[in-house]
Amino acid sequence: MLKRLIHIDNSLDESLQSQIRNKLVEGILIGSFALGSRLPSSRKLAEQLGVARNTVVLVYQNLQDEGYIVSRERSGIYVNEKIHQGWVNQNEVSHHYLPKVSDNQHRFKHAVQTTNQTACPADWQKYNFPFIDGKFDSSLYPVKEWRDANQQANVTREINQWSHLQGLGDDPMLLEQIRTKVIPRRGIQASSNEIMITVGTQQALHLVSQLFVDASVTVAVEEPGYPEVRDLLQYNGAKLVYQPVDDNGMLVDSQLDQCDIIYTTPSHQTPTSVTMSMSRRQALLQKAKEEDILIIEDDFEFESNFLRQPHPALRSLDTENRVIYISCLSKVLASGIQIGFIVADSGVISELKKLRKMTMRNPPLNNQRAVAYFLSLGYYDAFMLHLHKVFFERWLTLREALNTYLPNCIDTGPIQGGTAYWITGPKQLDGENLREKAAELGILIEPVKRYFAKGKHPENCFRMGVTSIPNDRIRAGVSKLAELIHQLTAEYEEKLTDASGKLLSNEVLKKLLPGTRLECQMVYGVPCTIDLLPDGSMSGHTSGIDSETDTGRWWIEDGMYWRQWKLWSYGEVKGFYVVVDGSQMKWFDKNYCFVRQLDIKEHTKNLDP
Amino acid sequence: MLKRLIHIDNSLDESLQSQIRNKLVEGILIGSFALGSRLPSSRKLAEQLGVARNTVVLVYQNLQDEGYIVSRERSGIYVNEKIHQGWVNQNEVSHHYLPKVSDNQHRFKHAVQTTNQTACPADWQKYNFPFIDGKFDSSLYPVKEWRDANQQANVTREINQWSHLQGLGDDPMLLEQIRTKVIPRRGIQASSNEIMITVGTQQALHLVSQLFVDASVTVAVEEPGYPEVRDLLQYNGAKLVYQPVDDNGMLVDSQLDQCDIIYTTPSHQTPTSVTMSMSRRQALLQKAKEEDILIIEDDFEFESNFLRQPHPALRSLDTENRVIYISCLSKVLASGIQIGFIVADSGVISELKKLRKMTMRNPPLNNQRAVAYFLSLGYYDAFMLHLHKVFFERWLTLREALNTYLPNCIDTGPIQGGTAYWITGPKQLDGENLREKAAELGILIEPVKRYFAKGKHPENCFRMGVTSIPNDRIRAGVSKLAELIHQLTAEYEEKLTDASGKLLSNEVLKKLLPGTRLECQMVYGVPCTIDLLPDGSMSGHTSGIDSETDTGRWWIEDGMYWRQWKLWSYGEVKGFYVVVDGSQMKWFDKNYCFVRQLDIKEHTKNLDP
Repeated sequence: MLKRLIHIDNSLDESLQSQIRNKLVEGILIGSFALGSRLPSSRKLAEQLGVARNTVVLVYQNLQDEGYIVSRERSGIYVNEKIHQGWVNQNEVSHHYLPKVSDNQHRFKHAVQTTNQTACPADWQKYNFPFIDGKFDSSLYPVKEWRDANQQANVTREINQWSHLQGLGDDPMLLEQIRTKVIPRRGIQASSNEIMITVGTQQALHLVSQLFVDASVTVAVEEPGYPEVRDLLQYNGAKLVYQPVDDNGMLVDSQLDQCDIIYTTPSHQTPTSVTMSMSRRQALLQKAKEEDILIIEDDFEFESNFLRQPHPALRSLDTENRVIYISCLSKVLASGIQIGFIVADSGVISELKKLRKMTMRNPPLNNQRAVAYFLSLGYYDAFMLHLHKVFFERWLTLREALNTYLPNCIDTGPIQGGTAYWITGPKQLDGENLREKAAELGILIEPVKRYFAKGKHPENCFRMGVTSIPNDRIRAGVSKLAELIHQLTAEYEEKLTDASGKLLSNEVLKKLLPGTRLECQMVYGVPCTIDLLPDGSMSGHTSGIDSETDTGRWWIEDGMYWRQWKLWSYGEVKGFYVVVDGSQMKWFDKNYCFVRQLDIKEHTKNLDP
Repeated sequence: MLKRLIHIDNSLDESLQSQIRNKLVEGILIGSFALGSRLPSSRKLAEQLGVARNTVVLVYQNLQDEGYIVSRERSGIYVNEKIHQGWVNQNEVSHHYLPKVSDNQHRFKHAVQTTNQTACPADWQKYNFPFIDGKFDSSLYPVKEWRDANQQANVTREINQWSHLQGLGDDPMLLEQIRTKVIPRRGIQASSNEIMITVGTQQALHLVSQLFVDASVTVAVEEPGYPEVRDLLQYNGAKLVYQPVDDNGMLVDSQLDQCDIIYTTPSHQTPTSVTMSMSRRQALLQKAKEEDILIIEDDFEFESNFLRQPHPALRSLDTENRVIYISCLSKVLASGIQIGFIVADSGVISELKKLRKMTMRNPPLNNQRAVAYFLSLGYYDAFMLHLHKVFFERWLTLREALNTYLPNCIDTGPIQGGTAYWITGPKQLDGENLREKAAELGILIEPVKRYFAKGKHPENCFRMGVTSIPNDRIRAGVSKLAELIHQLTAEYEEKLTDASGKLLSNEVLKKLLPGTRLECQMVYGVPCTIDLLPDGSMSGHTSGIDSETDTGRWWIEDGMYWRQWKLWSYGEVKGFYVVVDGSQMKWFDKNYCFVRQLDIKEHTKNLDP
């Protein structure tokens, strides 16, 4: 029987000793070994299980220390009869089956209406191409550093410190680290009574809403915007005003005049990733001043500014204590551990602390201390540098892949960072259908419906993020997705066979292309100029903050224009049929499918044959 | 300069390598070492600091891996210029001083009114005699076991698992452990969709209040009772009904008929430690059924039942899904880590999950997993056995000390457990004054004012707990406290010199005491009978669940009655002047101070001289 109860599985990571121990404990607790019953001697058990006797001796020693078993001299080893001390008498319990369907619904006073969660499947890690923003691939997690910080926080002296802070508030060590190492990155100065720790951003938003929002309050939110905030504000009774977002962030206009509070995500607007410009920030603060509005700044993903130094947080520009600043440590680290924080004037912080205490006491102090060590040991800074590098690389890779395989698909304008692209597909594209079909191919993209409050959302939009997919899978994923989009919208696409304009022959191409300058739009909203030089070489350059140049060669063959860039388009050789329609040039691939449209900027030759 | 920046302190626990590393990181971050500047070679730095070169080499290697410094071949080691990548341009920030006084108070919509916290000082550990319930002396914390469980939860594979549960809900491993190992102790069966994890009990109470309470709801709470619950219910607008507590727990009477919800702490009533009897439990459930009332059961300290097996939780007796069960893992462990849970029907749990998600996402998953390991490795069971033993021992020690030094001071009736005694001092005692004076002597006791909602509280009551004081300090603490109480109330005490009744002389004592049976009340509410046998021996026994007996000797000398028990009263020899007043006997000590009153139960002799 013992052998059946204690089955040893050599394929497990778990040590023999630990396996035997756990099975014995389980057997004792569920009653397979009766209380007070005698256990086999260590020699006998070792024989039966086919393990070294010493292993069993150690297990027994351990169980004895823990009180599961008792050893009686000259008699043997017994299950401790007192093991169930403190348990109820099971005979007193009514072992009835409770009705499965609750009759308590009618008692609910404040039912929660939540926006549907993103359609990301729970087993997203099994997909080959997960482009899901906010999920993180395992390679990013600073395992070694977190473990070290966590261990530092769990030595006896530290445990004594933090366990006694319970109920008293935040860990002073973490406050100091946030004050000196985290918020200065955003230009914010604060004393420690102007900072409060929270269990992630969501709790911060909850507490701030509880304090400032009721049915008399009108709040401006971004549209499209963060659905969880809309839910929270509406739960608290707020009237919402939906403020559009343009290339410079949330609009500042007279719609805001009626508002008491503005909620905004200026770093990287959720979900468009647009960064609010400095002038828009100033305008927003000015408007808030004129209309006496409180601003809730959700400083989302402030670490991912790739193309330029980040703008200062609104809170750092605030001269009137009008901005409540909410943020968290990098979501990669915070995911699971959930350390967020609020910066505001001490009067607000003090009231928020009362609210936090009443509703939860304080965020778990072991985590506060572990994160404090993570910061104080310099791991956080190093981790941020690393994340910045990794995300920037992926972000560029995705942009390059989109530009190559889906050349007409982005129109959010020039974004500077963030970890996701807002993508506008061909106008006949059904985004929901695309999402389903893509998932069948192992590609996860994010639908955007949930970000829109007002019912109507653009059916042909979706999001692709870089936090969850390793760099080396991005290109293949986008290439497959592009093929799928092509299939789904093929019937609406222009074909070479029915293209408007004139298909150019070998001779005409040879006569007309040399010396031509073409201009097209990169997917990320900046123009690209291509010069086809008469000597068969070509050069290209893009504008924007991160302008690029490349060179390559071009030639004509079989009635097609062929080109090969050194770096761009992965240096691949590719040929296109060329149609000219007025000042527009259109390229079609070898299957006669439309690829890209360009403007002919300069050509000194007559295109008529 | 380096030597000044990097001061090595050999008295620290921190390794040399770690000290040098941290100082360098700090120097880099605060700009003592400018970005891009060259650092001394490892040889030179080692010389300057007087440490082995290898130490510095390892530090440099480490900093390079983390991105703080870069090594350029043939040139040296430099501070990485990109270290501030992702920081804002500090020139754009307005380095103004924000007004210190907030102007935001007028925007608060729901100001929190909280009952004052207990007067326990933050540095309570420095006091010699901390009798503060709910604070825990460091020796109790299962450091080794927690560290082990925590490490198990922070290996790569585990981190990958729990960090990806973010947003999806509770850790299935923890749910399973609670379902199979924790709630069965209380007689509760539940499937995993009937359990939800919370950040401690307070969050559980908050979420349940949010869901079930608004201004239309009347809630019965215990009086005296848990103040944080009153605050929470009132914050949510509830009308409160204050229900008295007797020796069997919260009263069940017609006052409850008007209530929609009953909040109760049946295991050990907060703050009186009274356990609700089985018949009261049945009556409460019956009342709830008749009046269609929802019960919130806060299963406080269910682990500390010392004198008998605990009663089953209300939830385990509930046949109608009428009980919402709230509890947490042992507060010793949960303090700081804060893992609590709710058991209710799946309809309620599902709604509570929505609420929790909206207000906080989920309790930190690293802690959920670490606690799951703490349970699955059997540490929790062993820890509970250990705690039970330690607290029981202290609880008995405190009772014995109170009985010896403050013989007339408890009247909560026979309690069965809990970790604190509710103590009623002499009726002229000013509890608040006692608390202050006691603190000056290093004794911390808990005032009870905060437990009473309705303004009036008994001035002469206080609480003494055993969770924070080691067993070997209890007697001395009570002895000192007794002296202080005696000083403070001396003027009201009966003195031998003005005692009513007749002082017995040597001769009368000798004639009358042999064969006398005396009866007195133990401080914990059970009678004690003492027989003075003619041969100079005596025997005593107490009633109650844990009745005790002891023997000793007695004699008469210098006009006083002397006695020495074998075990009771610490086996000390003590003499008393004896006054008889009708059927009452009063003892006075050698300073003529009143000690104790007893009933003379049997005496065959005439006491008149």
